Amino acid sequence: MKLGRFFYANKTFFGLVEDDMVRVVKSIDPLTVSKEIYPKEALKILSPVKPSKVICVGLNYKDHANELKLEIPQTPVLFLKPPTCVIGHMESIIYPEHMSKQVDYEGELAIVIKKECRNVTPDEAKKYILGYTCANDVTARDLQPKNGQWTVAKSFDTFLPLGPIITDEIDPNNSRIKTYLNGKVVQSSNTNNFIFNVETLVSYISSIMTLKPFDVIITGTPSGIGPMKRGDIIEVEIEGIGRLTNYVE
Amino acid sequence: MKLGRFFYANKTFFGLVEDDMVRVVKSIDPLTVSKEIYPKEALKILSPVKPSKVICVGLNYKDHANELKLEIPQTPVLFLKPPTCVIGHMESIIYPEHMSKQVDYEGELAIVIKKECRNVTPDEAKKYILGYTCANDVTARDLQPKNGQWTVAKSFDTFLPLGPIITDEIDPNNSRIKTYLNGKVVQSSNTNNFIFNVETLVSYISSIMTLKPFDVIITGTPSGIGPMKRGDIIEVEIEGIGRLTNYVE
Repeated sequence: MKLGRFFYANKTFFGLVEDDMVRVVKSIDPLTVSKEIYPKEALKILSPVKPSKVICVGLNYKDHANELKLEIPQTPVLFLKPPTCVIGHMESIIYPEHMSKQVDYEGELAIVIKKECRNVTPDEAKKYILGYTCANDVTARDLQPKNGQWTVAKSFDTFLPLGPIITDEIDPNNSRIKTYLNGKVVQSSNTNNFIFNVETLVSYISSIMTLKPFDVIITGTPSGIGPMKRGDIIEVEIEGIGRLTNYVE
Repeated sequence: MKLGRFFYANKTFFGLVEDDMVRVVKSIDPLTVSKEIYPKEALKILSPVKPSKVICVGLNYKDHANELKLEIPQTPVLFLKPPTCVIGHMESIIYPEHMSKQVDYEGELAIVIKKECRNVTPDEAKKYILGYTCANDVTARDLQPKNGQWTVAKSFDTFLPLGPIITDEIDPNNSRIKTYLNGKVVQSSNTNNFIFNVETLVSYISSIMTLKPFDVIITGTPSGIGPMKRGDIIEVEIEGIGRLTNYVE
């Protein structure tokens, strides 16, 4: 399944991507489709979901922990980004020049929740996952040390590109992930470097807070983080999902 | 204006509190009411809003900064709580015994946003504020130092009681605030101890993220924070708003 959210003729809808065509989705769970079908190129692609919350994992790749010379955490480091951060494929990240002089990309795998859940075990976690998409946990690096909490650095409008589509057809714990800055590879890793795998993250987070349909968990970034400037093109690519492209404005 | 959210006969609605009666609200901005009116005692009171995000200020009372022997911050310390934390007046805080052995109260003034805003000046801020209510920023204190970020400690379901009602009839920068644990005063201060006043907070936060109608900003807690145990009654009272009562279960 490849699921996206689209805009056409004043209407916003979920659609199932079938090669060059998009079939309108009637319901997500269970997945049912209508007869309405459009050529993909006629549609504006939106962020694949509008989450009620976004839970972020701070340090979840062994290579990134080594890069930062940080100890491997015993439990996931969590923080939140506000829903107002979310933008879609081909949209622009707005550089907050009034406050920051260093804005970094962080390519990540995002988990999208399907069903409300609370206190699920790792074994049950997959049942509550709709699928996976690409994410860019954009961070004003120079604001991150400020006051200890990362919220200011991570919460600017447009600081969470998601997309282009959601799929459940990958192994989320063994997928190649790459970030391209102006076409050049700047991050290259595999989610098999995860400290906490997808099932463990869903289970742990659901032991703290109820997860709702379309909530998003972003799973941390591999090594190679670095700055962007206005005019740059930043892309996050995950094997089997596709490439999330955004502009820095 | 005293505004609440209520449930009666399978219907959830905003209502204007007029002594012992509640008049059904048709629209919030501009405020219009219907002819429908109910006795207050017949209604279940709900959390006064369901925010799309909750922005929290970490350290905003001079007395609390002194208590913790922390420097006065130059800019507000921000963090987020997920919307799944929110409960209303008379509802129960669920003690997360599977993860924490110390759960603290933190009585706070909450700002409720009226209109979408971005980059507002302190002078304009009041136009975007619907009013003020009481909040309890419940915190699993023993989890707070974990990994540096406060999200795990602050994000359990039920960890943000709000209410009982919203009013715009107070001076938010000069109101008495008290917290009662089983009827005994444990926090007692005045918002004139704020390091950053309400207008400065709305302005600063809106320079980072777009604020949406019904978003909530909780403004930090005064000195006197401390633990609760199951069976306790915890109450936050702000002059001119009323008393937010919750049980620890």
